[in-house]
Amino acid sequence: MTAVPDPLLKDALAAIARDVDTMFDALLPGEGQLGEAMRYAAIGGGKRLRPLLLTATAALHGADRSQALRAAIAIESIHAYSLAHDDLPCMDDDAMRHGKPSLHKAFGEAVAVLAGDALQSFAFEVLTDPATSGDPFVRSELVRVLAMASGAAGMVGGQMLDIAGEGQALGLPEITRMQQLKTGALLSAAVEMGAVLGKLPPEGRTHLKGYARDIGLAFQIADDLLDHTGDEAKAGKALRKDAEAGKQTFVAVLGEDRAREQARMLVDQAIAHLGSYGQEADLLRALARYIVERDH
Amino acid sequence: MTAVPDPLLKDALAAIARDVDTMFDALLPGEGQLGEAMRYAAIGGGKRLRPLLLTATAALHGADRSQALRAAIAIESIHAYSLAHDDLPCMDDDAMRHGKPSLHKAFGEAVAVLAGDALQSFAFEVLTDPATSGDPFVRSELVRVLAMASGAAGMVGGQMLDIAGEGQALGLPEITRMQQLKTGALLSAAVEMGAVLGKLPPEGRTHLKGYARDIGLAFQIADDLLDHTGDEAKAGKALRKDAEAGKQTFVAVLGEDRAREQARMLVDQAIAHLGSYGQEADLLRALARYIVERDH
Repeated sequence: MTAVPDPLLKDALAAIARDVDTMFDALLPGEGQLGEAMRYAAIGGGKRLRPLLLTATAALHGADRSQALRAAIAIESIHAYSLAHDDLPCMDDDAMRHGKPSLHKAFGEAVAVLAGDALQSFAFEVLTDPATSGDPFVRSELVRVLAMASGAAGMVGGQMLDIAGEGQALGLPEITRMQQLKTGALLSAAVEMGAVLGKLPPEGRTHLKGYARDIGLAFQIADDLLDHTGDEAKAGKALRKDAEAGKQTFVAVLGEDRAREQARMLVDQAIAHLGSYGQEADLLRALARYIVERDH
Repeated sequence: MTAVPDPLLKDALAAIARDVDTMFDALLPGEGQLGEAMRYAAIGGGKRLRPLLLTATAALHGADRSQALRAAIAIESIHAYSLAHDDLPCMDDDAMRHGKPSLHKAFGEAVAVLAGDALQSFAFEVLTDPATSGDPFVRSELVRVLAMASGAAGMVGGQMLDIAGEGQALGLPEITRMQQLKTGALLSAAVEMGAVLGKLPPEGRTHLKGYARDIGLAFQIADDLLDHTGDEAKAGKALRKDAEAGKQTFVAVLGEDRAREQARMLVDQAIAHLGSYGQEADLLRALARYIVERDH
């Protein structure tokens, strides 16, 4: 296992981190405590996996990078709001996020609720700006894919199952379902939004969606492994909280070795879904491998 | 002053209350605790002023009622989520809403946060369904108007100013600004979304926006008056909490008589904005008068 991604991916990770921050800085409101809190939650943290997935898929189908970056900050804005609300005392009660105090620790609970709410609205505002696409059908579809992945049938539905499952003996199917919603829905949306920008028709998205589903699950297994064995300093947040909270994880159910094996198998499967693409999809392949090899 | 609206308005209020509940029931997720909580927050409460404003404006410009109703439940879903989050202990800490326990009292804080979040996503999902409009430009514009009115430059921005202003001696300009964002932005969006559905070009919306701005402010002054003098049983929530929390209100700054006078003047002004419309705008005129005459 290595933590160093291949050169193509390394450059892409550095570029997306820089470009996402630049665009958040340009588009987020700058005034007052609310703007400050939104910036605190959105800028300068995280691996930007969703933006990278979105822009890489968009590039694969010839979409404009500056437009894809706008869609990328929309999805990252949803991700950032979900972390801010997830960290609240009434939810997971986390004090640290991305190596700094979580939003409610830095700004108070009320501001953390409101900044999260405003980040969600911001995402849909950005997507419907004609600068994101001159084609209103593309704008409307981007909103639709992201809203469905974010809500009750997606991310929030998964968080609800996560909370409801605390202290209960969940089996592998229940954990898989919960994680597919909580994390998988947004990762799939990233790929699908890239395809929408590239004007790939729905019937052409099957392989990409299979890729996204497999890396989504691999990502979560890797997260559980890191939570089990990882380094808190590198993670920038408290680890091993799931076990303390009585939450079931893939590692708890499968054991460390089988979990690791399962994650690798999913990555192979994800890469196999990209079989119809040539070397232009090498970045997506490298990203799939990185997801299980990263050390934070 | 009377609490009984004119017959035209009375019928319209009854119809919109029924139709909004029917459509929420048909479209909100039905399963699990999250779906239950979303339904609890959205169905069977409130005067449905935003849906009425939206559908009345849409009808004025020949839009289809069933499509307008879909846009109406989107905006009401945003309103419902904002009340759920506003009532949280870390915000206004309200135990009652629409005559029943507030969402966090009934379902717990974590579920109240998540159901609010999911209601916001639901709004944008509904708007981008082709059933809301066959024209993707209309769908995209509906999202844009609602997202901008909901976020940092609208409703959430106003709530932030409200919280930040507690215990401070705000003047009339600051209170007006705060209320224009907190309540006015969404009321204006209701009118503008009706105009978008009716395919009224932006330059034709000036009078409607003037109408919305004036009734928005009149609405808030009337709310402050009801908070000052009203009946908790009719309101279905605790009153006189603003004064206790050290929040400034129009009544506190202007006094009861001048506040009442100001609200009436705004209503006259709102009605004057509708001068270019004939009797087809009588419902909007009646609604403007009702806003200051209601007793809850």
